[in-house]
Amino acid sequence: MFLKAMDRLKQQIAFIVELDRLKTVLRQSWLTDGGRRENSAEHSWHIALMGLVLAEYANAPVNLPRVIAMLLVHDVVEIDAGDVLVYDEAGNLDKAERERRAAARIYGLLPPDQARELCALWEEFEAQRTDEAKFAAALDRLMPLLHNFLTEGRTWRQHGITADRVLARNAAIGEGSTALWRYARELIEEAVERGYLPPAP
Amino acid sequence: MFLKAMDRLKQQIAFIVELDRLKTVLRQSWLTDGGRRENSAEHSWHIALMGLVLAEYANAPVNLPRVIAMLLVHDVVEIDAGDVLVYDEAGNLDKAERERRAAARIYGLLPPDQARELCALWEEFEAQRTDEAKFAAALDRLMPLLHNFLTEGRTWRQHGITADRVLARNAAIGEGSTALWRYARELIEEAVERGYLPPAP
Repeated sequence: MFLKAMDRLKQQIAFIVELDRLKTVLRQSWLTDGGRRENSAEHSWHIALMGLVLAEYANAPVNLPRVIAMLLVHDVVEIDAGDVLVYDEAGNLDKAERERRAAARIYGLLPPDQARELCALWEEFEAQRTDEAKFAAALDRLMPLLHNFLTEGRTWRQHGITADRVLARNAAIGEGSTALWRYARELIEEAVERGYLPPAP
Repeated sequence: MFLKAMDRLKQQIAFIVELDRLKTVLRQSWLTDGGRRENSAEHSWHIALMGLVLAEYANAPVNLPRVIAMLLVHDVVEIDAGDVLVYDEAGNLDKAERERRAAARIYGLLPPDQARELCALWEEFEAQRTDEAKFAAALDRLMPLLHNFLTEGRTWRQHGITADRVLARNAAIGEGSTALWRYARELIEEAVERGYLPPAP
């Protein structure tokens, strides 16, 4: 019985150790001080705290612990599948399949009950059907807007993204939070005014 | 009314933006691949997920969302106060005062109700009286043991730490989780056997 319990703990520790690799997956966003690109692990922390602070703006009352758990796991698959820029249409083509394989391998390190539980959280986020998933995704879109604004449009300019594409790609924020989408639109307008983001070509 | 609501959101965003700086606070731990030192933001993500996965080992049944929220905020004060090695006795002398000032400034960016709420979470962690705080602190001690073990004792050797000090400093793990303390002791023993950690002088 004790040996079986130790096996379970060892599986859990193997998963926790594997998570360390998310710290080396770089996102397209730059830290607000411009010093380096952000990694997906620190982004996941940042956005989980964002969820804690901004929960009141969700369109529907959400189960906040579930939103936070979802945000903590939402990028774990990037350990195998990498981070793809939201505007990169080619890179997004086989993303779903690569991420599914990653989820099976990484969550598969856990004991079966927890593998199912955490994988289900990630699948819920991806499916975008529940209020929790919609609100979590709204935060995941708002955060890069903030980073872009605070680095004077660094990623936008680097990839030649224009305001029309930013508006189109981020309209889904409104499905999770009308209030945050209103705020995001103001931020995008101000980014155009300041010259951080070129207007539609 | 709308203007007042926007003021509230702007305070919340100011806090979220300030959090970005925790990504540049370096800890003594090295990533398990040995590539660089870990920062406090990615550590906070890692340990929040550790809490989600290991909750079953808490000595008393814990309010898990509270544990996770506590782990998400537990190092935020380091934005101003920096990270101090747990074995650095001089550096730990005025740590409490520096961290109190940091908490007042950083949480003070939030609207008063949320400033109180998040600051209280951090104070609960520091006070180590509730079951949630004890379990969260157990994880916060176990994580560096794992990192040290997986980097062949890199931080221990760098600072000349011996096994007796590691055992003494980490015994508090048992207050949060007897099972995890048993696991930690095995890890420490194995680290000594493998030559990652010198025995008592």
